[in-house]
Amino acid sequence: MKNIYIGIVVASDRASQGEYEDLSGHAIIDTLKEYLQSEFTPIYRVIPDEQKEIEATLQQLADINKCCLIVTTGGTGPALRDVTPEATENVCERMLPGFGELMRQVSLQYVPTAILSRQTAGIRGQALIVNLPGKPKSIRECLDAVFPAIPYCIDLIEGPYLECNEAVIKAFRPKK
Amino acid sequence: MKNIYIGIVVASDRASQGEYEDLSGHAIIDTLKEYLQSEFTPIYRVIPDEQKEIEATLQQLADINKCCLIVTTGGTGPALRDVTPEATENVCERMLPGFGELMRQVSLQYVPTAILSRQTAGIRGQALIVNLPGKPKSIRECLDAVFPAIPYCIDLIEGPYLECNEAVIKAFRPKK
Amino acid sequence: MKNIYIGIVVASDRASQGEYEDLSGHAIIDTLKEYLQSEFTPIYRVIPDEQKEIEATLQQLADINKCCLIVTTGGTGPALRDVTPEATENVCERMLPGFGELMRQVSLQYVPTAILSRQTAGIRGQALIVNLPGKPKSIRECLDAVFPAIPYCIDLIEGPYLECNEAVIKAFRPKK
Repeated sequence: MKNIYIGIVVASDRASQGEYEDLSGHAIIDTLKEYLQSEFTPIYRVIPDEQKEIEATLQQLADINKCCLIVTTGGTGPALRDVTPEATENVCERMLPGFGELMRQVSLQYVPTAILSRQTAGIRGQALIVNLPGKPKSIRECLDAVFPAIPYCIDLIEGPYLECNEAVIKAFRPKK
Repeated sequence: MKNIYIGIVVASDRASQGEYEDLSGHAIIDTLKEYLQSEFTPIYRVIPDEQKEIEATLQQLADINKCCLIVTTGGTGPALRDVTPEATENVCERMLPGFGELMRQVSLQYVPTAILSRQTAGIRGQALIVNLPGKPKSIRECLDAVFPAIPYCIDLIEGPYLECNEAVIKAFRPKK
Repeated sequence: MKNIYIGIVVASDRASQGEYEDLSGHAIIDTLKEYLQSEFTPIYRVIPDEQKEIEATLQQLADINKCCLIVTTGGTGPALRDVTPEATENVCERMLPGFGELMRQVSLQYVPTAILSRQTAGIRGQALIVNLPGKPKSIRECLDAVFPAIPYCIDLIEGPYLECNEAVIKAFRPKK
């Protein structure tokens, strides 16, 4: 059985300078622990909103640390310092527009400003990279919506087999 | 307090040649006057469906006229002369796919051909550019759906503060 | 009256090597025969998941065979051999993101893994190219959703006039 490594990337100028404590990255790790029955090792990074640095971090987590899943938080809005989607697109070989569409649709049920999010997802080698919003509450809403598709996606890119805690979330794998 | 300039660009071969009177651009101005409590100066342009000319007009409205918001109407279909989304993408530094997704979803409630629209939105400097459909009825449906997110978007790109007429439309600004 | 040619492209390594019989392409032809009152000639191709070969096939069907509509099946997932959307984008002059958005939304009603599909659509010259999923059941769900917009789209790119069997599916053409 393959080891499961999951990267968590917090893109935030202020958190990376210690101006405030990151809550979002920890919220993601807690949620993943609730979701997954499989043991996994989280690899956690807090970095500034610099496109080159986000790209280098994503590449390292995918290529060197062999993460099958990398989730980012922060940097997906319309402001000048928001560059996470650009970094994601630059390091991915193929994009999965359905993730962003569904996350915006879900967030729209709560706030009309959901359309300002540029969240996306894509594949780099054997890693699925998914952008999440910055706020813990929105993170959970988005993860609940897209996670059921993630284990099968990782099967398709020949990553490790993720088993979910079915009382919390149901992974969907189509019958062959 | 900053002055508020809003660009309205009508892309239409026939309207620009005087073959018929533009209704769509005027419908947009009327709607914006209903929406906004803040005083604003509309800057109105009627131009042919030429990509280079649309690009130059958008650039001028953003960079020279300092519009914080530019709305276009027309030229978003699948026909050969429909080039407004291409022009928009070429002059924007970042795209906001959520606008197009939501506008198509709203229009789909009325007509199945809504999926033929290639409407998009993006940011150029301190201007938000939004493509609207060509027909006054669809314009209003789309604006009603996306406008609640626009004042906050303009806050995020450091433009002027837009105040809405809350009896007509509610701008949403998340609490810090 | 123009002759109507419709291309059906099955992208599948295994079906193209005769490892199994293609069901999806035939399901598409059957569905189109149900939909269309107009006579049409299907042009059917089964090819491997090779991007260059898919591109060449789409180009030939559009430019040489004068298909007004080309539908593909297969190759739209996240796996390495899934390259149909890339091939489609490479040969199209303009993309129609609304098709993919609607098809994913419809498929989401059945399976949460619908967000893994990268299906898209676009225009090459006077041909509309639409990616469909690989499985016959999903094909029908997607076609039922997007087909009502297809005859008008083909009008707009100056193709032949498609008449639908209204008891099965209703094409929508806006009144001028």
